[in-house]
Amino acid sequence: MARIAIIGLGLIGGSLGLALKRSRLRDVEFAGYARSRETREKARKMGAIDRAASDATDAVRDAAVVIIATPIAAIPDIMEQIAPALPQDCVITDVASTKAQVMRWAEELLPHHVSFVGGHPMAGKERSGIDVADAALFEGKPYCIVPFVHAKETAVNTVVGLADLVGASPVFMDAEEHDSYVAAISHLPLVVSTALFSLVRDSAAWPEMAQLASSGFRDVTRLASGSPEMSEDICHTNAQNIIHWLDRMVAELRKYRDLIRGDDEEALFKAFARVQLERDAFLAGGAKVKRPERPVEAGIGLSDLLMGHWAASRTREVMKAVESQEPPAGRAHRSRHRPQRER
Amino acid sequence: MARIAIIGLGLIGGSLGLALKRSRLRDVEFAGYARSRETREKARKMGAIDRAASDATDAVRDAAVVIIATPIAAIPDIMEQIAPALPQDCVITDVASTKAQVMRWAEELLPHHVSFVGGHPMAGKERSGIDVADAALFEGKPYCIVPFVHAKETAVNTVVGLADLVGASPVFMDAEEHDSYVAAISHLPLVVSTALFSLVRDSAAWPEMAQLASSGFRDVTRLASGSPEMSEDICHTNAQNIIHWLDRMVAELRKYRDLIRGDDEEALFKAFARVQLERDAFLAGGAKVKRPERPVEAGIGLSDLLMGHWAASRTREVMKAVESQEPPAGRAHRSRHRPQRER
Repeated sequence: MARIAIIGLGLIGGSLGLALKRSRLRDVEFAGYARSRETREKARKMGAIDRAASDATDAVRDAAVVIIATPIAAIPDIMEQIAPALPQDCVITDVASTKAQVMRWAEELLPHHVSFVGGHPMAGKERSGIDVADAALFEGKPYCIVPFVHAKETAVNTVVGLADLVGASPVFMDAEEHDSYVAAISHLPLVVSTALFSLVRDSAAWPEMAQLASSGFRDVTRLASGSPEMSEDICHTNAQNIIHWLDRMVAELRKYRDLIRGDDEEALFKAFARVQLERDAFLAGGAKVKRPERPVEAGIGLSDLLMGHWAASRTREVMKAVESQEPPAGRAHRSRHRPQRER
Repeated sequence: MARIAIIGLGLIGGSLGLALKRSRLRDVEFAGYARSRETREKARKMGAIDRAASDATDAVRDAAVVIIATPIAAIPDIMEQIAPALPQDCVITDVASTKAQVMRWAEELLPHHVSFVGGHPMAGKERSGIDVADAALFEGKPYCIVPFVHAKETAVNTVVGLADLVGASPVFMDAEEHDSYVAAISHLPLVVSTALFSLVRDSAAWPEMAQLASSGFRDVTRLASGSPEMSEDICHTNAQNIIHWLDRMVAELRKYRDLIRGDDEEALFKAFARVQLERDAFLAGGAKVKRPERPVEAGIGLSDLLMGHWAASRTREVMKAVESQEPPAGRAHRSRHRPQRER
């Protein structure tokens, strides 16, 4: 039976297993590995994997697809470990929040007879771990696909197919673009949210303030509850981009400070009014990739996915959807990067 | 019949009307006024008020209690307008997000034969207006009660009673404390959330970024969708405190910047780990005022509220609850300010 291996069974790895297993993929065995035996057993019992492997090498043996879903810092070790056991033409992907460093590791550590395609589902929760895994986690969410310039089309299509099977919307980009974009819309919010919480929490008046803190404070500081390992990994592997955005954020706060201190009430009002309008436009969803209707067809096998028949047609549909979506506020929303034709 | 007047029928005014009318308060007529005739009619039809008054003066005539729920900037005009029509011993309260300026206006503009007690329910939505009014808006939320030092106990008890009737938890403080606390837990998050959105939105890569922005970005920037009038009013009437916190926020972001740029991974990890733990403790709710059980009794009349019989006993219960609550993480959570005994 065809096999997909999932290395790392936390929120993302576990959710991918659950989502793929309830998808239309048929006749595939899911082998899973996590460092903790307890996690492996939990994942198996809740149906995120079919078989708990005793080590990463065991999990990837005979696998057609390997999903690395460990913390970023563990990725190079895992790659080194599984490299000798990876079958010919195996497709490897990951789910890390930063991509440039991961692509360098893949280039350096994986054998040439396999294909690596970076992946990053833009989904998460403030809690981590297999206990909060959720088959619906990726529904309607963007899924970044980051291929090497020379990536095989079938390998890219396989990862697009996986993203599509879990209900996500594949979006293509290169690693540098990815890291600079997510620095702004994901990592900067993480650091800002964390800094806001630590600043207020460290105030002498915190006991009184905490009593008054309501949903606004809770929402804006939500990301401060994320896994510290993951936050540190992100900052470590995307430091330059994050620092760039932190510097800009400081400048932006100063702009608001000057507006508040100044006596041009009109300018302050206009600043708030413009942001409200623009956020409304953002929420109205012009930015969201419209999903094409799912074709009514029976279950598909891993070989269909790997042969690219099904995924390639899905890729074309996704591309078409991306291209035909209405650009909000006169701006074009489309991926600039496409996988290269197979050489 | 006893009358309560609500001036301003937006989210807060409308929700107070709905919540009070479904409370145990009996034999009270709610007169409401809003500048827009359409809003007044809507409020009446949805049951937030019994009678739509044609102007603010008409609404407060014969009122035992007046709730001013207009935007902050409109408060001085409203106070001037209603002052001549306010009955002897009338209790006036407001719902504004800042208190020092409102208390100065009350001192200056209201007649001496009425009692003003500042109020600020810590509840809101990112949308405003009567259409999103909600009887459950205040359930379990803190409700700041800001009395003058010389406030009459019955007047304070009346406003405590109102807060209690809508399901909120009254918390006493003075105006300066209030404004400094909410600057940190409400106004700073508002400006940070807004600045984060405008910064990222103004990026040349926004179309690509918007496509990837997920729930994290959405939550942290949620407050950017608030009413620009309200945001401007808040910044205008609490500028000094907000600027103080913005300066500290800039310094805090710099601290994280240095941690990210530095090579002490341990220090960065520890910073994230500490914040996660502390936010968990915060969410665990040690900071929340425990509500005493509601006594099983029949409906109460406005005269009970005004005579202070019922509210005074409720105040004592609330005080007891505040004092007996378990202090989380070794810190005491209790109001330092109590209303003065009537002179």
